[in-house]
Amino acid sequence: MIVVETKQDLINKLDSYQSHQTIGFVPTMGFLHEGHVKLIEEARKANDIVVLSIFVNPLQFGPNEDFESYPRDAERDEAIAKQAGVHVLFRPQVDEMYPEKPSYTVSVRNRVNVLCGKSRNGHFDGVATVLTKLFHLVQPNRAYFGMKDAQQVAVIDGLIKEFHFPIDLVPVSTVREEDGLAKSSRNVYLNKEERSQAPILYKSLKIAEETILNGERNKQAIIERVSSLIKTETSGIIDYIEILSYPELKELDVINGKIIIALAVKFTNARLIDNITIEI
Amino acid sequence: MIVVETKQDLINKLDSYQSHQTIGFVPTMGFLHEGHVKLIEEARKANDIVVLSIFVNPLQFGPNEDFESYPRDAERDEAIAKQAGVHVLFRPQVDEMYPEKPSYTVSVRNRVNVLCGKSRNGHFDGVATVLTKLFHLVQPNRAYFGMKDAQQVAVIDGLIKEFHFPIDLVPVSTVREEDGLAKSSRNVYLNKEERSQAPILYKSLKIAEETILNGERNKQAIIERVSSLIKTETSGIIDYIEILSYPELKELDVINGKIIIALAVKFTNARLIDNITIEI
Repeated sequence: MIVVETKQDLINKLDSYQSHQTIGFVPTMGFLHEGHVKLIEEARKANDIVVLSIFVNPLQFGPNEDFESYPRDAERDEAIAKQAGVHVLFRPQVDEMYPEKPSYTVSVRNRVNVLCGKSRNGHFDGVATVLTKLFHLVQPNRAYFGMKDAQQVAVIDGLIKEFHFPIDLVPVSTVREEDGLAKSSRNVYLNKEERSQAPILYKSLKIAEETILNGERNKQAIIERVSSLIKTETSGIIDYIEILSYPELKELDVINGKIIIALAVKFTNARLIDNITIEI
Repeated sequence: MIVVETKQDLINKLDSYQSHQTIGFVPTMGFLHEGHVKLIEEARKANDIVVLSIFVNPLQFGPNEDFESYPRDAERDEAIAKQAGVHVLFRPQVDEMYPEKPSYTVSVRNRVNVLCGKSRNGHFDGVATVLTKLFHLVQPNRAYFGMKDAQQVAVIDGLIKEFHFPIDLVPVSTVREEDGLAKSSRNVYLNKEERSQAPILYKSLKIAEETILNGERNKQAIIERVSSLIKTETSGIIDYIEILSYPELKELDVINGKIIIALAVKFTNARLIDNITIEI
C-alpha cells in the first residue's frame, strides 16, 4: 500500500497504472471499522486497484456539529487499510482539498430535506462537493458507499446520474455488531447503559419490516410502533422515524414499491442512525 | 461526421474509439460563425477526435433574457460543423439534458460578480452546471472556449482547477470581422447604423491598450477615455467598462500583471461584449 497526501502525488500514482486496470474507490472520513473494511473487500472483488480516501470534510459539518471532535486515528486507519488490501491510501489535509474558501460548490435540491438532511442544512452540498472533487482526482470505475447512511447513498446516486459521472455506485449493506447495532465511528461515544440499549434501534426496524411484510400498510401505525419501542426501551431521544420511497426519498401515500424505514436517535454524546430498505 | 441527439448515443459512439485517442471538445450554443470554426480548427490540430455540442442551455438564461429568441439554425450549423471537420456533433433537446428541473447544480462564488455576471445573476451557475454534465459525457482531454467571453473562460478555468476535472482548458483568441468587430451570434440583431458604429468597441480597447503600454497606470483615466470614445461615436449605451486582474477578475489598485479591459454596450436589439487581455 502506498500512502499519498497530495493531489499531485495521487494523480502521479494513478497515472502509473494501465488504462485497462479498473479502480474501485472507497471515500471515507476515517476512524475505520468493519463497515469500511467490508467496502474495501467489495471493491477488491470487482476492481484491479482499490483507492481509499480518508478526509474529514469540513464542508459537510454544520457550525454546531462535531468537525473538531470527530474521531481521528491516522496510524490505526493506515494499519487497517493495509491489512484490508488497499492499494492507494489518499489522506489529504484540509488545505490540500480546500486551499481557499471554496468558490465552486454543488447544491442539492431533492432528497435532502428529509431524514438527517432536515436538521443538517447544507450537509449534502458539502458531501456532493467533496465527492465531485474526489471523483475527478481518482476517476474510479466504481465507488463504494455503506447503506448505513442510506440518505447519503440516495444523494450520491442522484449526483452520479444527474451529472453523468462515468462511475458505478455500489451500495454495500450495513455491517452490524452481533447484537444488531450498526457499526459506526460514533458508537465509541455511547456510555455503557446506552450501548446496551442501542440494539433496540435495529430490532425495532426489523419488527416494522415484519409488520409490513405481514400486510400492514398504515404508515403512521408502523412509525408509532417503532417509536414506542424505542421510547420504552432506551434513554435516547427520537430525532426522526420516517418511511419514504427509496432512493427518491419522497413522502408516501401508500406503502408500496421500494421503501426505506429510517430513524435517528440522540443519546448523550452520540446521535445514532439506522435504516432498512424493503421492496414490496 | 455523426450527429447524435441522445446522451446514450453519444456515450456509445465515444465508446467505439480507442482509449489512446484524444478528444477535443467544443461546447457551443450553435448559430455557428467563424469564431466557432476557429475553435474546431484548434481542436482538430491537437486531438484525434473533435466533439462539438450545440445546446442552448436554458439554465444560463435569466427570466428576462433571450432564451426563446436566441438564434438557432440546426441545418446550417450541421453543414458548418461537417465542413470544419467535426467528428461527432452532439445536439440534445432540452429535456434530454434536463428531464426534470435540475436537482444538482454548481454554484459559483468568485469571478462572477463583475462584468457581465453583475447583471446576469445565476448565469455562470448555469454555465458551470451544464459544462459539468457535458464534461462527464464527453470526457475530453481538452476543451476549447473563445476569449470573446473572457469572463466565461475565467469561470471555467476556475471550475476545471477547483473541481480537478482532468481536462486542459484551451482559450482561443477572438475572431473579428475585417473592421475589428468581434464575431458573435448576436451581431445579426444590429441595425445598419449600429453595425457601422460597432467596430468602435474594439478600436477603443486597442487605444486603451496603447495608452497602458505607453505608461498610463491611472485606471479611471483609461476607462474614461474608452467611455468617451464610445459615447461620442456610437448610439450604444455603455453597460460597463472594467479593468480587472485576469483570470481572477479582482479589482486592481495598480494596473499590473495580467489584466483584462472588458466592456459591454447595449444597442437596440443586441448587447455586444468585447475585451482584450494585456500582460504588463
